[in-house]
Amino acid sequence: MADQEVKALVFDVFGTVVDWRTSVAAEVDALAAEKGWSLDGTEFAMRWRAKYFPSMLPVRRGEAPYRRLDDLHRESLRAVLTEFGVSLDEAELEHLNKVWHRLHPWPDSVPGLTRLKKKFILATMSNGNVSLMVNMAKFAGLPWDMILGAEPARNYKPEPVVYLTGADWLDLDPSQILMTAAHNGDLQAARDLGFKTAFILRPTEYGPTQDKDNKAESDWEYITESMEELADKLGA
Amino acid sequence: MADQEVKALVFDVFGTVVDWRTSVAAEVDALAAEKGWSLDGTEFAMRWRAKYFPSMLPVRRGEAPYRRLDDLHRESLRAVLTEFGVSLDEAELEHLNKVWHRLHPWPDSVPGLTRLKKKFILATMSNGNVSLMVNMAKFAGLPWDMILGAEPARNYKPEPVVYLTGADWLDLDPSQILMTAAHNGDLQAARDLGFKTAFILRPTEYGPTQDKDNKAESDWEYITESMEELADKLGA
Repeated sequence: MADQEVKALVFDVFGTVVDWRTSVAAEVDALAAEKGWSLDGTEFAMRWRAKYFPSMLPVRRGEAPYRRLDDLHRESLRAVLTEFGVSLDEAELEHLNKVWHRLHPWPDSVPGLTRLKKKFILATMSNGNVSLMVNMAKFAGLPWDMILGAEPARNYKPEPVVYLTGADWLDLDPSQILMTAAHNGDLQAARDLGFKTAFILRPTEYGPTQDKDNKAESDWEYITESMEELADKLGA
Repeated sequence: MADQEVKALVFDVFGTVVDWRTSVAAEVDALAAEKGWSLDGTEFAMRWRAKYFPSMLPVRRGEAPYRRLDDLHRESLRAVLTEFGVSLDEAELEHLNKVWHRLHPWPDSVPGLTRLKKKFILATMSNGNVSLMVNMAKFAGLPWDMILGAEPARNYKPEPVVYLTGADWLDLDPSQILMTAAHNGDLQAARDLGFKTAFILRPTEYGPTQDKDNKAESDWEYITESMEELADKLGA
């Protein structure tokens, strides 16, 4: 079914649609100013995010039951606060943990997605849990038709079950779905299952010295520098 | 948590948001004209829908594994075609089965939901499967934030797991969620679990001689005659 027409676009979100680094850094800097902490919000954001992949591994390996990303984020946040030698009460910690529900989109994301939505089904294919994705969509104005990804599959990307549960729920063959991401590894995992692929270059996701995903590392079906360029290429 | 502020509205869809009877009848009448069948589209629609509740019972009773509503509808459609003494080839049958993805909204649904979406999270809480709900939303312009209901829970309303899985995925207490339906039984099942409830009167869902759900049968938190009246009452 390699020549099937694309009916749906599914999106990685953290880094691809929203700029987590500057969004988290800004809230941490504001909190640090309020608390009189001497720390750098960007460094805090990077250290928090560095715990993201390791935190999912026990679930991916089947060594731990699925827990949603909000819960993994909270555990990582406690560790980062300790590393920086600062503390928060439970309500403050809960509020800061939900900063991942309040991430700002890249400037091209909402205009591009709004165009794409007129022609295609748009769904998330993120490791974020459903409430995280729904709240972020309300906050950032992201026009998803559906939230797919980790929670429906009770596992984490790049495990195949996550992508395949999404295709199954849309009742589409993977070849009818375009996986869109700023990360080559995510696209390769989807391509291995028969999905079509689109790369969006996000060269500052990890800051000015980003040393990965600075270019398309394979012949993805679409290679673009913005969501609007993707809309152009798809005639949306 | 009885006094929690409502954050999300979840909706029954068939009958509450869309008018399945006239939508299905119109497509069946058009098909009958094309095929030279002598049958009444409305009667066909009513007979098809009459198989809906019984078709879900084996799943609800745990006697059969979950199968999505598209599959139950297809089985029921085969039976109705036989009852009317007509037949379709597989492609035609598949197309007609998907008429449930092409249902037209009541006139107040899109304007009301569009207003409500600015203030609340809006999700389906339907027995329709995800692709049915997503395709219908694209067809009818229904602005859902999320599709919840039968498929995420792999069971059918009014089983508690369906409502509770939705609340869990939204990470809300049931008291923060307003279940909206034209059916008293659906609201009672949700209220029993702690959801708030809104009744929308749809006195012609089953046609001019409708003999059930012609009025609110309990003191639902909101009792209205349209989605726009609900938006008024909720200050949206």
